[in-house]
Amino acid sequence: MKTLTEDILYRVINKRPQESHKGTYGRVLIIGGTTQFGGAVIMNALATVNSGAGLVTVATDSSNFTALHCHLPEAMVVDFNEDLTDYIKKSDVILIGSGLGNRVDIVQHTFYTVTPHQILIVDGSALTLVAEHKLKWPKSQLILTPHQMEWQRLSGVTINEQAFEAFNMLAQHRMNIEPIVVLKQHHTQIYTQHSVFQIPVGGPYQATGGMGDTLAGMIAGFTAQFMFSTSDSVLAAVYAHSAIADELSKTQYVTLPTKISAAIPEFMHHYAK
Amino acid sequence: MKTLTEDILYRVINKRPQESHKGTYGRVLIIGGTTQFGGAVIMNALATVNSGAGLVTVATDSSNFTALHCHLPEAMVVDFNEDLTDYIKKSDVILIGSGLGNRVDIVQHTFYTVTPHQILIVDGSALTLVAEHKLKWPKSQLILTPHQMEWQRLSGVTINEQAFEAFNMLAQHRMNIEPIVVLKQHHTQIYTQHSVFQIPVGGPYQATGGMGDTLAGMIAGFTAQFMFSTSDSVLAAVYAHSAIADELSKTQYVTLPTKISAAIPEFMHHYAK
Amino acid sequence: MKTLTEDILYRVINKRPQESHKGTYGRVLIIGGTTQFGGAVIMNALATVNSGAGLVTVATDSSNFTALHCHLPEAMVVDFNEDLTDYIKKSDVILIGSGLGNRVDIVQHTFYTVTPHQILIVDGSALTLVAEHKLKWPKSQLILTPHQMEWQRLSGVTINEQAFEAFNMLAQHRMNIEPIVVLKQHHTQIYTQHSVFQIPVGGPYQATGGMGDTLAGMIAGFTAQFMFSTSDSVLAAVYAHSAIADELSKTQYVTLPTKISAAIPEFMHHYAK
Amino acid sequence: MKTLTEDILYRVINKRPQESHKGTYGRVLIIGGTTQFGGAVIMNALATVNSGAGLVTVATDSSNFTALHCHLPEAMVVDFNEDLTDYIKKSDVILIGSGLGNRVDIVQHTFYTVTPHQILIVDGSALTLVAEHKLKWPKSQLILTPHQMEWQRLSGVTINEQAFEAFNMLAQHRMNIEPIVVLKQHHTQIYTQHSVFQIPVGGPYQATGGMGDTLAGMIAGFTAQFMFSTSDSVLAAVYAHSAIADELSKTQYVTLPTKISAAIPEFMHHYAK
Repeated sequence: MKTLTEDILYRVINKRPQESHKGTYGRVLIIGGTTQFGGAVIMNALATVNSGAGLVTVATDSSNFTALHCHLPEAMVVDFNEDLTDYIKKSDVILIGSGLGNRVDIVQHTFYTVTPHQILIVDGSALTLVAEHKLKWPKSQLILTPHQMEWQRLSGVTINEQAFEAFNMLAQHRMNIEPIVVLKQHHTQIYTQHSVFQIPVGGPYQATGGMGDTLAGMIAGFTAQFMFSTSDSVLAAVYAHSAIADELSKTQYVTLPTKISAAIPEFMHHYAK
Repeated sequence: MKTLTEDILYRVINKRPQESHKGTYGRVLIIGGTTQFGGAVIMNALATVNSGAGLVTVATDSSNFTALHCHLPEAMVVDFNEDLTDYIKKSDVILIGSGLGNRVDIVQHTFYTVTPHQILIVDGSALTLVAEHKLKWPKSQLILTPHQMEWQRLSGVTINEQAFEAFNMLAQHRMNIEPIVVLKQHHTQIYTQHSVFQIPVGGPYQATGGMGDTLAGMIAGFTAQFMFSTSDSVLAAVYAHSAIADELSKTQYVTLPTKISAAIPEFMHHYAK
Repeated sequence: MKTLTEDILYRVINKRPQESHKGTYGRVLIIGGTTQFGGAVIMNALATVNSGAGLVTVATDSSNFTALHCHLPEAMVVDFNEDLTDYIKKSDVILIGSGLGNRVDIVQHTFYTVTPHQILIVDGSALTLVAEHKLKWPKSQLILTPHQMEWQRLSGVTINEQAFEAFNMLAQHRMNIEPIVVLKQHHTQIYTQHSVFQIPVGGPYQATGGMGDTLAGMIAGFTAQFMFSTSDSVLAAVYAHSAIADELSKTQYVTLPTKISAAIPEFMHHYAK
Repeated sequence: MKTLTEDILYRVINKRPQESHKGTYGRVLIIGGTTQFGGAVIMNALATVNSGAGLVTVATDSSNFTALHCHLPEAMVVDFNEDLTDYIKKSDVILIGSGLGNRVDIVQHTFYTVTPHQILIVDGSALTLVAEHKLKWPKSQLILTPHQMEWQRLSGVTINEQAFEAFNMLAQHRMNIEPIVVLKQHHTQIYTQHSVFQIPVGGPYQATGGMGDTLAGMIAGFTAQFMFSTSDSVLAAVYAHSAIADELSKTQYVTLPTKISAAIPEFMHHYAK
């Protein structure tokens, strides 16, 4: 297992080319948020937009539209009960699952619609639904962001066994398309196609609801923009997320998700050369 | 009566252990907020989440969902007209009553459902409803947060008599389970099982609507996290609430509840060693 | 005409007595805000609460509840289509009219219900409705806050004639109860029972929608708290409102109403001895 | 093509005359925002109000009212499904099209109703609808704010041809009333009646959703206030928009639209002499 260093941020976060427009930085579709868990997609979207994604649309329960626009008029919305086919097709990155509850129908339709050249990030409830309903993974560029219990449900690797890298790799390889797996824990591990990485940053001040939704949103924002290497973009997003929390923890007992998102533009500026 | 010192904060607010996750810091259920008093649960939840509780769900009138999520996407919501049994059962701490109006049915169901190992904080309208309907207290770890008139209604101790510690203690002991009583006033008093404490902090800049909702939310956040001693956690929360107000009052004529909640993470950081 | 000085602020804004509670600082009822002009009551309430009023309830169209609570969970709400009798009766100060549209029924009911010991501030649309429908003024402590065109409609004194103090005083005295009149203009004039005052502060950076709603809210907050002299409280509120704008204008081209309200607690702190 | 300098800001942004009121600074009507694109009018309005327009009304889908008022109680609202005739008639400046979706009926009614002395800014979806439905331009003071693809659809000048000033000028002159055209791109170009200008400011940190909505809102705010020269006001607004982004980019990787609007009052203050 390799320990990531701050170097990943310098490598991934580039100064933007002068001749570019919002399309250059990716179209992201975020799918999630029942009424009860509407905050999850708000936190997704705050992270994605603040990371610099070009255009962000949130497909969610319509009861969440107003709260989302209160936080972020920069995002567009669509009711996730409508047919999302066109929205999925025109996106570069799709993030599905934060606060999605038991909407397996939406997961199924998304898996059915995505194509191999698209990046699909699967988070939260969607991971549980895949395990419960034994859904078949789609053939897109898959990124999974389970916490340890979700990973157990998905992979069959128990939480105790998860300490052994080999078990996790095996489980990852058994999924037909070898997803990038972000296994959330104290010092989160990232399983890419060839290697396993661990971040040396982050701490218990992050142990609060919504932290994972923010991470998933940052992964969406980074992979949408920095397209030369999806795995490097994931590594950079995971590193940045916890490094920002470390920074905030110097003055705050708990580092709330919305404060992490607010700090992203200034944090990224530091690394863009 | 013992006068609390800042020492209670150093004793209760600990540096978090590295190996922990949001479950470690407690599940809190906040029940309150009719349409008319929807602000109350927003102020509850802002205080609870900023105090560092792990997972916070707000059971309230659905008309309050959007405003709550505008302030705090970190919280989850559920309509308090639904059956709350499962929500109550899986919580470590339940705070009921801020802005609850005349919903005695919800108080009754909650009292019926909570178990002895759970912490139940009873605030605001719920205290009045208990007095009016002569409800029987449940056998959970009870924390009551009355202002002086609510205490008179509950205990029969008139406001004049409340100056005498012995009357209040007697009333407290008469309740079948000896609740912790936070008797709100200028220099609030806290009646624990064996002792009575008074805080030397706080002032009239706190005399504004919502101050008590914020205090109740902080008590929920502290007791959910710092589980070694419920009474010490209550003492620390009450002390912290007024100490933050004192700090803000150095530059502000009135110290609004939402500003107190915003200051919690930085305040707590100072005491975590 | 006397020119007010900063001295009015030192005289009115007192350090609060230690033994006091939110009831000490007054109950304010704000009535206004059709759907179209919902922002008006939000700006009223932001000013009233930030001025330090004890308890604030906003009677408005229910479509405005969520936006109000997004800004200010500290305020309570009630649908202004309900019977407001009880709400009016238990208030110390009633502010009616900001963004009230053509709801003459609500003005009439309020005028019918208020009593002589209550303070009634009449602003915006309510002033126009009084003129149009020739409503009879109630026998409460009246404060009117017209801009120059509204004053012309109410008093018959044309805008040109308004330059002459005597005309305005005559019109004021003709109203059966001699209201305090805040005649809004460049360097606003205040007609109390015996004298006329002008503020030397304020400027054209205040010429933006909502400025008057904020002023009306501050008058409500000041008169609810500082009860020894209603006219002095009005003078202090009008002075403070423009003095804050002057301060903000040192760095801002236009001084938005919401920024004025946000600056009130720090501004008032400076004068409280 | 002339390169604009900071001088345009000193020339246009004047210290306001003491004797003035909100009517002096213009009435702006913003028309746009289906449910899905509601954020667009919020960003329009934030820019217009922060620029200092006197009175701003937003005609939009009623589902957007609450989110708009959360951001900006200073703005009034009206449902764009109502008859907007009176609203259009009493406005000095009308901005139509941001997030308007396929509502060609609203564009047609607005074009039919505006008069030659009014300023009409046409943005976003409205530009596409004009091209698709071959609508006839109205005889008002027209300002168009296309990005390059919208300009191709409108004018027939392909994106490659747009590099040649002459083609754009020809297309502009062919429209019956010679609009001011703000052709958005890296270093945006502005075609006035006699000259072509380019701004030397701005950069790729602006490549994010909502940037154009903010620009359109600023143009509305500037032209409503600084009425001696509409073309100079447009030039100043376009320059200011990107100059603020440049300033923010010194510390932020991506410069979000809402942050640009928040920075306007302080930015304009610097140039007002």
